[in-house]
Amino acid sequence: MSVASKETAIVTAGLLVIGDEILSGRTKDKNIGYIAEYLTGIGVELKEVRVVADDEAAIVEAVNALRHRWTYVFTTGGIGPTHDDITAECVAKAFGVRIGYDPRAVAIMRERFAEHELNEARMRMTRIPDGADLVLNKVSRAPGFWLGNVIVMAGIPAVMQAMLDEVAPKLKTGAKVLSETVRADAREGDIGTPLGELAKAYPEVTIGSYPFFDDQRGPNTNVVMRSRDADKLAEAKRAVEAMLARVKAAL
Amino acid sequence: MSVASKETAIVTAGLLVIGDEILSGRTKDKNIGYIAEYLTGIGVELKEVRVVADDEAAIVEAVNALRHRWTYVFTTGGIGPTHDDITAECVAKAFGVRIGYDPRAVAIMRERFAEHELNEARMRMTRIPDGADLVLNKVSRAPGFWLGNVIVMAGIPAVMQAMLDEVAPKLKTGAKVLSETVRADAREGDIGTPLGELAKAYPEVTIGSYPFFDDQRGPNTNVVMRSRDADKLAEAKRAVEAMLARVKAAL
Repeated sequence: MSVASKETAIVTAGLLVIGDEILSGRTKDKNIGYIAEYLTGIGVELKEVRVVADDEAAIVEAVNALRHRWTYVFTTGGIGPTHDDITAECVAKAFGVRIGYDPRAVAIMRERFAEHELNEARMRMTRIPDGADLVLNKVSRAPGFWLGNVIVMAGIPAVMQAMLDEVAPKLKTGAKVLSETVRADAREGDIGTPLGELAKAYPEVTIGSYPFFDDQRGPNTNVVMRSRDADKLAEAKRAVEAMLARVKAAL
Repeated sequence: MSVASKETAIVTAGLLVIGDEILSGRTKDKNIGYIAEYLTGIGVELKEVRVVADDEAAIVEAVNALRHRWTYVFTTGGIGPTHDDITAECVAKAFGVRIGYDPRAVAIMRERFAEHELNEARMRMTRIPDGADLVLNKVSRAPGFWLGNVIVMAGIPAVMQAMLDEVAPKLKTGAKVLSETVRADAREGDIGTPLGELAKAYPEVTIGSYPFFDDQRGPNTNVVMRSRDADKLAEAKRAVEAMLARVKAAL
């Protein structure tokens, strides 16, 4: 059973987005959607996202809440060279470990910057909590890190994406959630009751209903079915299609 | 003092985004950035965002965590006509109040839909927790609601935006956070140390540093200063500009 349970285990994640600029609306986050789609694609289920300010108490609390709850926690933002980049210090505090200039990180920065450029600000980027592994970054070089189940990444999308590529092959992953979408060509309110009955009839399949406005026919609906079981998914899809045909014939 | 403190009070908000489709990455959220910018503009400070699944326990827990912490809580998503729309039930549960078909909401839906269209699914949208006020919706009519300090809105951006316009004039608001942006024309690592000193010297001003890639000159930085005090903000801006001139002259 242990081999089978390893293969079908559900691997979960929380995401913590750190930055005043997201909460003020000045910067529109592009990482949540990217990470959500990426994790779904590799068989890690994103269960919760939090966005907090550049505030030590808020970051420490969120890191601790999320890391005790989910298999992995990803963070974005706050690992640059300026005073408002406090993520590494906060993660060290959340774990109760020391933080210092990491020789591996210093070596990377020495390759990238001339000695006179390695000022106090840039050296901040080499401060890594004790016990962490580095997460390499092919784009701007300054590394993220991985401590316990917490993976600390940059906020700049191109850098974050390079770090995620670096980390992904090392993650435990579960059975992928497969999905099917059926365009209802019906209004959500016309299919809600029978769709709810199908959701009960197929408990292994999560059925979602997403209204959208269709330029051709007005209010329309996408029915999205998600499951780790391909057979149950196909069965639910056939049942949804049959229900839609029935409902539309009766309208 | 009470009049002055009312004017300068800090009014805060938390935002709860509800929906499997955001966590799976299928739908890219557009509401967080819009609401963040909107609230900043009217003098409400967004302090925290959470995204949770269409899961009763997760929604109830998040509503209760946020409503005890911030002046207001806004929620988006989960108030449509289908089985996965459980936000109203969850908010009632979080507050420990009953929920039922609300005559005001039923009257609105009767204006919008013919009697034979008012099926069980559409009637779900008239279920409102006891004690709540309705939040009208000029776009698709089905109302959101406002219970205690929690404001429940739709997930579809156009509908959410209409509801926010409806609610905004009724919110307590604080002194607006003003902001100034200075384009550094310098790399973040070159200005980090003196910028950190200025952040300490101007405690009433939050100074953020946002690196970006500039097609003309490569790595560049925006320095963003935010404060409720216009004079302090102007002073900090002058100090940042003087610092940038000094640093660049020395490079």
